Amino acid sequence: MAALVQNLHRSNVEHLVRQAVYQRLGKPLPKLAAAPNALVVNVSARHCHLTQEAVEALFGKGHQLTVHKWLYQEGQFAARETLTLIGPRSRVISNLRILGPCRTLNQVELAYTDGIALGFDLPLRLSGDIKGTLGCMLMGPSGFFEMAEGVIRALRHVHMSPEDASFYGVKPGGEMRLKIGGPCGLALDKMLVRVDKSFKLEVHIDTDEGNACNLQPETPCELLA
Amino acid sequence: MAALVQNLHRSNVEHLVRQAVYQRLGKPLPKLAAAPNALVVNVSARHCHLTQEAVEALFGKGHQLTVHKWLYQEGQFAARETLTLIGPRSRVISNLRILGPCRTLNQVELAYTDGIALGFDLPLRLSGDIKGTLGCMLMGPSGFFEMAEGVIRALRHVHMSPEDASFYGVKPGGEMRLKIGGPCGLALDKMLVRVDKSFKLEVHIDTDEGNACNLQPETPCELLA
Repeated sequence: MAALVQNLHRSNVEHLVRQAVYQRLGKPLPKLAAAPNALVVNVSARHCHLTQEAVEALFGKGHQLTVHKWLYQEGQFAARETLTLIGPRSRVISNLRILGPCRTLNQVELAYTDGIALGFDLPLRLSGDIKGTLGCMLMGPSGFFEMAEGVIRALRHVHMSPEDASFYGVKPGGEMRLKIGGPCGLALDKMLVRVDKSFKLEVHIDTDEGNACNLQPETPCELLA
Repeated sequence: MAALVQNLHRSNVEHLVRQAVYQRLGKPLPKLAAAPNALVVNVSARHCHLTQEAVEALFGKGHQLTVHKWLYQEGQFAARETLTLIGPRSRVISNLRILGPCRTLNQVELAYTDGIALGFDLPLRLSGDIKGTLGCMLMGPSGFFEMAEGVIRALRHVHMSPEDASFYGVKPGGEMRLKIGGPCGLALDKMLVRVDKSFKLEVHIDTDEGNACNLQPETPCELLA
């Protein structure tokens, strides 16, 4: 039970409690409480995705990424391994987290604040769409790996299942809005909708967006079509 | 003329051109074009305000702040002088810009991203309302100055004249919304209204907010009551 509770996100618990309370009171569920799944909003700090080839260049032949922390999306994890990014003006970001498992391309996702500190003019791209973007040098304990391209600011997006998409009335590639409450609340426009049977309902924003509104676990969030 | 144009903000020029174009076309002005003043939105990078006493402790007896760049509000300037902030865990921010002229209190305004890097849990405060906040150590070329309190994230706010307040139908201490367009646009809620006869219409947001939406000089912005 303890393990199960640990794996439940706060938003899921709130969603379940809200549904139970309305049922007990014999009242109809408000629209959001009737949603098939709880909305989880997570801040992605800067990170990178690597190919197995890059992992081996950086951490040694045959090296496999190891799990530091499982992420909310099934099978995704923050690796124990981190590396150093060297930018075009020899400025450096240390302890850049690698997300696993390995992919078929190398991609570094930074916030604009990071880009300004590094001297990168970051393009805003959908994850995976890295053609023509700037590259950088990566340094690991066993060597260097030069990325010819792939340093981006990722477009804000929401992962969802077809069931969620149908509830919200949105289509893959469409756009939604995310309202975030609290004393410095805001509403993020143009959140890209990504739909897959395997996806859990989750919004990914970066540290600039999360810090602009001081997003905390208890901050109320609402997804609008 | 060159000097005059240099001092005009892009938004002021656009506002004047918009009004002239509608007049030429003989069309009625849309509401925003009829506003008494152009809206200017500026990002405040981290900075501090100091008393003359603190300036002298840091830069030497009798030292006066010198002007690096005039700001949009009359008489306000970014000083040439910068200093080093030392946080509670001995982490440091170098080249912290001082804004002049001197005030009657010492205050450091950081973004949450800066606070996280430093290990500060920043309170969200109206500028000047620093009672009970954390302090820090400041280091200048001539010495140290210990601030007992005054490290904050400043509440987002808009400066305006009574004429602007009347146009937008808002009162001092009220709240407005700022819509910012572009490919990663957003709307900032709870922008505090500050009214004074001497104020030019200007929104101040911090680097987290400015980078969340990649605010550029040409990004469209709209102020909503």
